[in-house]
Amino acid sequence: MPAKEKTLKDLFLEALKDVYSAEKQILRALSKMAKAAESEELRKAFQTHREETQAQVERLEDVFETIGKPARGKTCQAIQGIIEEGNEVMEDFADSEAIDAGLIAAAQAVEHYEISRYGTLKTWATQLGLEDAAKLLDETLEEEKNTDKLLTGLAERALNPKAA
Amino acid sequence: MPAKEKTLKDLFLEALKDVYSAEKQILRALSKMAKAAESEELRKAFQTHREETQAQVERLEDVFETIGKPARGKTCQAIQGIIEEGNEVMEDFADSEAIDAGLIAAAQAVEHYEISRYGTLKTWATQLGLEDAAKLLDETLEEEKNTDKLLTGLAERALNPKAA
Repeated sequence: MPAKEKTLKDLFLEALKDVYSAEKQILRALSKMAKAAESEELRKAFQTHREETQAQVERLEDVFETIGKPARGKTCQAIQGIIEEGNEVMEDFADSEAIDAGLIAAAQAVEHYEISRYGTLKTWATQLGLEDAAKLLDETLEEEKNTDKLLTGLAERALNPKAA
Repeated sequence: MPAKEKTLKDLFLEALKDVYSAEKQILRALSKMAKAAESEELRKAFQTHREETQAQVERLEDVFETIGKPARGKTCQAIQGIIEEGNEVMEDFADSEAIDAGLIAAAQAVEHYEISRYGTLKTWATQLGLEDAAKLLDETLEEEKNTDKLLTGLAERALNPKAA
């Protein structure tokens, strides 16, 4: 289809594929981050969020179903870059006093990417009259916002007191 | 320096270089996005935010100065990926009814990356007792949050009524 004939519905589907790919990349990243975490509290937070992310992948599959499209991903370059940056911190600060601070920061960059994407998708679903999809997307949006708040709390308490 | 000897101050400096590189990439992207925007209102919003971004680059230079380090960037891969994704939307939806919706979404992904980074930097500056730096970083953080809200408003009003 020529670019200029495309509609908001096409854009919605593209963004859905993008975030589906992102969530699957995040699943793998969270396992790695849980292993790298120094404090038990942060490790557990990553593990819990990994389970939540698994449920979010399934919820996205439900969204694809509401619009009668197969659940398919399209490599999300944005999250690739964000995760790559997290990997660098894991290498450059391995076993240092600042590793947990670095991991929390990486995770918050991931959460904020998702907050922007789910916010956008929810708005578009509403504008397209896709109420079931909008409701599902809003559920995940609220979960991502809560995870971000939880991480802010951990960062501000300076989880690893050695680091400050 | 071996990874395990690094401190929160090293992490803070790395993140500062990262966001300095990000802001400079964003400056270039905003010019391109302003040109691609269909509505006059969105074009102006991008132009205004470009001027604000220029001031944020200078404010970051002030932050480097408060810690006695030269202002230097370190290619931010995360923002590279986010901008690359925006470029794809500009190509795939060029001149379509959905172009402005796509541009707003791309810009909000950029804003959220910055919100996460400035939030993190401000927290670390506070923990490191760098009060001047924390104050400067907080100013930019508030500006990024305001820009994100403004873009949400534009998206929800479905700027380009054809798109809905």
